[in-house]
Amino acid sequence: MREADIISALQASIDQSSSEVIVPIGDDGSVIATNANKQLVTTTDAITVDIHYPKGIEAKSIGHRCLAINLSDMAAMGASAKWASLVFSMPSIDSKWVEDFIIGFSNLANDNNVDLIGGDTIRGPEFFAVSLQGYVEQGQFINRTNAKEGDLIYMTGHLGSAAYGLELIINNNQNDDEQFIRSFLYPSPRTKEGILIAKYASAMIDISDGFYCDLGKISSKLNKGFKVDVLTLPIEPNLIEQTSQDKAINLALTGGDDYELCFTVPEKHENQFLEELTSEFDTLFTCVGQITESKELLMAGNEGYALPESTFEHFSS
Amino acid sequence: MREADIISALQASIDQSSSEVIVPIGDDGSVIATNANKQLVTTTDAITVDIHYPKGIEAKSIGHRCLAINLSDMAAMGASAKWASLVFSMPSIDSKWVEDFIIGFSNLANDNNVDLIGGDTIRGPEFFAVSLQGYVEQGQFINRTNAKEGDLIYMTGHLGSAAYGLELIINNNQNDDEQFIRSFLYPSPRTKEGILIAKYASAMIDISDGFYCDLGKISSKLNKGFKVDVLTLPIEPNLIEQTSQDKAINLALTGGDDYELCFTVPEKHENQFLEELTSEFDTLFTCVGQITESKELLMAGNEGYALPESTFEHFSS
Repeated sequence: MREADIISALQASIDQSSSEVIVPIGDDGSVIATNANKQLVTTTDAITVDIHYPKGIEAKSIGHRCLAINLSDMAAMGASAKWASLVFSMPSIDSKWVEDFIIGFSNLANDNNVDLIGGDTIRGPEFFAVSLQGYVEQGQFINRTNAKEGDLIYMTGHLGSAAYGLELIINNNQNDDEQFIRSFLYPSPRTKEGILIAKYASAMIDISDGFYCDLGKISSKLNKGFKVDVLTLPIEPNLIEQTSQDKAINLALTGGDDYELCFTVPEKHENQFLEELTSEFDTLFTCVGQITESKELLMAGNEGYALPESTFEHFSS
Repeated sequence: MREADIISALQASIDQSSSEVIVPIGDDGSVIATNANKQLVTTTDAITVDIHYPKGIEAKSIGHRCLAINLSDMAAMGASAKWASLVFSMPSIDSKWVEDFIIGFSNLANDNNVDLIGGDTIRGPEFFAVSLQGYVEQGQFINRTNAKEGDLIYMTGHLGSAAYGLELIINNNQNDDEQFIRSFLYPSPRTKEGILIAKYASAMIDISDGFYCDLGKISSKLNKGFKVDVLTLPIEPNLIEQTSQDKAINLALTGGDDYELCFTVPEKHENQFLEELTSEFDTLFTCVGQITESKELLMAGNEGYALPESTFEHFSS
């Protein structure tokens, strides 16, 4: 298998169904017919071994992951993904490994109707960069800057499971707790939910670096704060059972790799939002706090909650 | 300097002047107002140390290079670059190094009115991936598939100088031959020429892997061949003086890193093409051969010319 064959094999595995693609992958660049009624959204996110995932995890997960993190960013903008470009770099090419990578990438691409329009293959470090383009209806995007004091802070899904799965992988506890390991290996970006949430949300972000850190990106952009009750954080009951409540809360606050959506909803829209979203999806939607005037405040019920010291490394790395 | 500061510093160095950018860099994704009269062109190309450039070359050149190779692809489509996304990965952050990288990247971005709309910074291997988006007027793009038998093969600029520059750098001959070293360190993508050439060309590609290899990508897509007289290849007289005619021709055929445009022009358009292009640019335009029915034929005047054996490694790597 040569470098060029990797892109051909990927191309063959992905339904290249979009009529908007005038020149597909395989030339100096791709050409797309634009849609004047929509705005173009672009995301760029890369992963590399030892930084974003431990050495030796299955190739299918790596192929899935490099696309999933971009789909999650796209969802956090309230946009629909359309076209992906992939930079694929590996020090040597093992055909079986590449085939598994392609399965992981193309399954997720096909589930989301994403075409591959560009690719570059390199015999270099283990490194995968994706740039993803998508559409949003005029003015319907959600960025991080419009939340107001009093807006409710909501989460999709569960927090902390992926971080615990990563811990299990690193400690080689791979036979237990398949559920958590899968949460790390195969994050499910909230692509469908993001588009509907955008109808109601005032700000949105996806949780990649950890709930506390990522929520801080919204509040600091606004010069606002937040108040969150850590006892309301959506944590799998299993995770508390297998660790402890303290540890589970810490994983949920700071673990990262969740790829769930965190968003703010004006109180007056809450009922309509919950009605539409819960009728459309089985996904869990949990209110975990509120945007406040100035302070970042964590509570555990009626008492203040202090983050463990180690957490603050997230802000300086 | 933290990872996030790199993107901020880049952002500050680049004129973010485009009114089409609705949400700039700094959110989960960027948002752009599309233009219904144009088609969207996307290129993706990455570079990494030891593969694309030798360890230790100046940071300004690396910043320049990762954008230049994408601008060259964009030019080879006949399109105008508009928006870039950068994945910046380095094992450690040296402020001076990063500042120089930013100068190289942003100077070239500003010269070409390119906005930075996305970025990801990683403490990982030395690796830089750029995805570039641009526009072409409806149907005015040039890909690799429309050359016909008899079309003339043209080149911009000179071939072989960058490859010789790379040789000098590797052999530490950095005091001599500044001209060739600069050709390698600071390739000048033919961004303005590409757009005008597109009015006349039937196919176009940029020369990154080497003239012989890249021209073969055009002819093999067409199931055609080409006939090229190596004595007509545009080679700097200096290069022949400093090496030998044989070596200079070999560098020109197989060296790569030229980032010049190779394109085909129907014979009947040649005069008009030359008139418009030479009145508009000081750039050298050289006819080096013709598209033929089936064989790839190199001549040296009236005699056949055989590629040195080593050349064929290009096709198997």
